[in-house]
Amino acid sequence: MGLRLTPQETSFYSLFATSASLLVDATRELTKLLEVDASQRQPVADRLKELEHEGDDATHEIIKRVNSSFITPFDREDIHGLAAHLDDCMDHMEEAADLIVLYRIGDLPAGLGDQFEILSRMAEVTALAMPKLRSLKDLSAYWIEINRLENQADELHRKMLAELFNNGADPIHIIKVKGIIDGFEDAADSFEKVAHMVEGIAVKES
Amino acid sequence: MGLRLTPQETSFYSLFATSASLLVDATRELTKLLEVDASQRQPVADRLKELEHEGDDATHEIIKRVNSSFITPFDREDIHGLAAHLDDCMDHMEEAADLIVLYRIGDLPAGLGDQFEILSRMAEVTALAMPKLRSLKDLSAYWIEINRLENQADELHRKMLAELFNNGADPIHIIKVKGIIDGFEDAADSFEKVAHMVEGIAVKES
Amino acid sequence: MGLRLTPQETSFYSLFATSASLLVDATRELTKLLEVDASQRQPVADRLKELEHEGDDATHEIIKRVNSSFITPFDREDIHGLAAHLDDCMDHMEEAADLIVLYRIGDLPAGLGDQFEILSRMAEVTALAMPKLRSLKDLSAYWIEINRLENQADELHRKMLAELFNNGADPIHIIKVKGIIDGFEDAADSFEKVAHMVEGIAVKES
Repeated sequence: MGLRLTPQETSFYSLFATSASLLVDATRELTKLLEVDASQRQPVADRLKELEHEGDDATHEIIKRVNSSFITPFDREDIHGLAAHLDDCMDHMEEAADLIVLYRIGDLPAGLGDQFEILSRMAEVTALAMPKLRSLKDLSAYWIEINRLENQADELHRKMLAELFNNGADPIHIIKVKGIIDGFEDAADSFEKVAHMVEGIAVKES
Repeated sequence: MGLRLTPQETSFYSLFATSASLLVDATRELTKLLEVDASQRQPVADRLKELEHEGDDATHEIIKRVNSSFITPFDREDIHGLAAHLDDCMDHMEEAADLIVLYRIGDLPAGLGDQFEILSRMAEVTALAMPKLRSLKDLSAYWIEINRLENQADELHRKMLAELFNNGADPIHIIKVKGIIDGFEDAADSFEKVAHMVEGIAVKES
Repeated sequence: MGLRLTPQETSFYSLFATSASLLVDATRELTKLLEVDASQRQPVADRLKELEHEGDDATHEIIKRVNSSFITPFDREDIHGLAAHLDDCMDHMEEAADLIVLYRIGDLPAGLGDQFEILSRMAEVTALAMPKLRSLKDLSAYWIEINRLENQADELHRKMLAELFNNGADPIHIIKVKGIIDGFEDAADSFEKVAHMVEGIAVKES
């Protein structure tokens, strides 16, 4: 890792940065779900679908680049794994947002705004961490913060489940809302997996 | 990878081919669930259980072989991982089929035949890809096709969920059917993980 | 692996042993849930939360040690992965136990005691296996036993699902209990992943 990287190799970092910045965009779209009328949610879900496709393009570009590069900045399977976990963050957010539309949920659950805020923060710290993959330095603050946020997400998720069940809602509404808030919790878990992956890379390469 | 492989090493490929061809058999059994009476589903589920056990045997044979081989065609942990993901495909299909019997579902949901068709096609292209592990050439068409099929499976799964919830079914029926169609969607995801694993191996070894 | 290990490196094994022995403690707490009044379950869930935090501390100690060690007894990413899977066992048990309290479940489902017994046995054989990571010998009995226990857990889980659905319970109760017994089944799956990881390490290092 002491070598100066050529432009070819550098671009891996910018592709990861692109992938993570699309996650920041996605969390911004999520927030809009809280601001618009139920009838205006479809365009938001569509925009998330577009962001997911852009994320897929970034992922495929990373894979193609790995295939054609003689030297890669870190292990090929780690580049692969990191791209896949970033993809999972997007997929879970897009799917859960789509379920809000598909299930024709009227009033969104109270805690959803808090889930979105945690996911926004996770996306932001992840996007800030990606350029540091170059030096693999100063990354511990990132994974400590992600860990803290994931614990917060987990606690919020359980509180939301308890409220959902103990509020006398009808079972079909419960199944639908549970599917949605579980999906956003899965997204938070995926952000944590990205951080663990980065931690693993830092451990190996340093 | 430029060396001629000895019979010992070749057999890894044939064990993977066996494992994948059992998945083709399993998807054929699934299709039978649509053709028989509800009262005749148990024997189909039993046959899937047998196929699952045969799959386990193939997996254990691969593991044993890895243990006793001095040289393996690719990394030991990749052989391990690939065997495990093929196993997951079978496990999810067997479990979801068993739930159809356990839950005493009367009429199967309309989209199930389409789910089975996608899984059949996934099993077939996977089985065709396994012998190519030898050369690690011409595999990109395989993972592109699996990716396309997984997107199709995902879209179908969401459509089935929307129909399930918006058709006025009773909640217990919804929970049961959701468990089943989610299980088959998990199987489709596992086929994609197999393809990603193969892609990862090709990236590393080529 | 032929080198004598220094105290520094030896401590990895004792940290894994600590992590696994906390899982034994956790399964003991689970059993108490069956013995106390519904009103006395909160302190048990709290104790599981404490054990989870102790487990996190052990995991972080392992990661820190990996970072600062020049030589590690086996691959850094395997140490990382093993610590993460042990963590998952604890997390699933803690979460499912917490849901029992959160969901205000009155009568616990009949099979829960059997689920706990299987998890206890899994924790015990895992704890007995950890010190053998040093030599990587005589571990096959461990993963065969875990495999057997996981099959047993899986069969029990399906039987519990069938009973839950076919006993005429109301849908909300079904969703709650399903969430709990699925959680304990996820814990059993995580114990199997630990065993697969150990098997993978033994394959690579031997």
